[in-house]
Amino acid sequence: MLKLFTAKMTCAMASHIALEEAGADYEIATVDFGRNQQREPDYLAVNPKGRVPALVTDRGVLTETPAILVYIAQTHPDAGLAPLDDPFALAQLQAFNSYLCATVHVAHAHGRRGARWADDPAAWEAMKAKLPDNMTQCFRLIEDEMLQGPWVLGERYSVCDPYLHTVANWLKVDGVDIADFPKTADHFRRVAERPATQAALAAYG
Amino acid sequence: MLKLFTAKMTCAMASHIALEEAGADYEIATVDFGRNQQREPDYLAVNPKGRVPALVTDRGVLTETPAILVYIAQTHPDAGLAPLDDPFALAQLQAFNSYLCATVHVAHAHGRRGARWADDPAAWEAMKAKLPDNMTQCFRLIEDEMLQGPWVLGERYSVCDPYLHTVANWLKVDGVDIADFPKTADHFRRVAERPATQAALAAYG
Repeated sequence: MLKLFTAKMTCAMASHIALEEAGADYEIATVDFGRNQQREPDYLAVNPKGRVPALVTDRGVLTETPAILVYIAQTHPDAGLAPLDDPFALAQLQAFNSYLCATVHVAHAHGRRGARWADDPAAWEAMKAKLPDNMTQCFRLIEDEMLQGPWVLGERYSVCDPYLHTVANWLKVDGVDIADFPKTADHFRRVAERPATQAALAAYG
Repeated sequence: MLKLFTAKMTCAMASHIALEEAGADYEIATVDFGRNQQREPDYLAVNPKGRVPALVTDRGVLTETPAILVYIAQTHPDAGLAPLDDPFALAQLQAFNSYLCATVHVAHAHGRRGARWADDPAAWEAMKAKLPDNMTQCFRLIEDEMLQGPWVLGERYSVCDPYLHTVANWLKVDGVDIADFPKTADHFRRVAERPATQAALAAYG
């Protein structure tokens, strides 16, 4: 059985929803970021990066959302969560996930995790001040150039969809109104309505 | 024929080396970051993100290094650049590439691109000051936990290797001595010696 280490409102929720969509045999373990459990020795033994998600498989631990999402799709082919045999379409899926991971998630992290990149508290405040602008710029690109509709890759739901939903869920705390991005807001609602999404989110209370 | 938009000393060099390793039919177009050509309309029409790499294929443009690297591997299967049929091994490859893309590259970018995340020049200086520490921390994890040796994934060369080489090539300008990481330094030399690497790097003069 797979075991996903996850935490509320983190990017790990994308993998959690994908496991539900796949009909995977899995359990979750929640990591308490409120008391910094991700930096404790027990958890660092699972994932030395001190981050979520971490997916424990029978061959070892996997990390990084884009890697875990394709792994879930590839090990549950009947769920059709990725165009695995079409290199161009798979690369489009991967490019989308990579943008969320390396640009949008990183922009978001500057709101609360400025200490990763500077030691000066005044710099953390400067990063926080730019956060809404940066998230707006990211979602403008997603809205205008990337989200094909109705799903991220067009007619077919894929692992990009729970990932976008998870990241879009941060807009409110980042000071951005999702209503400024009508296609993204509509996508957000449709992912939220899916039984798999509801089953995953219910685990966080 | 494929066309790779690339620039010297950027992460696009990983895709360039991979195209050489694959024996791909390709050409390159260099983007002049010195005169900010990546923000000009002609280039934004290719890649609205204003970044490299961008790979023009007969079906459209692909972006994001982790996506392009797997695309090159999947479309040139004889080169054996990724364990495409082993979901766990492929996820390890992807996790490594994702770490380089979303953590190491991002850490590096804070040295010169602080304006992405803050408007205050004092904050840019604070980010620059923390750069060597952050790159050291990243490469400590790569050295101790990730680089299996002799290649990133063990006995088999993969697209992770030119990507690590490309990112390790930034250590010097980031104020970090690669000699502090003996396995990484040895890996760097061995990738540099490969004919594909030399052919790609020769294109930048």
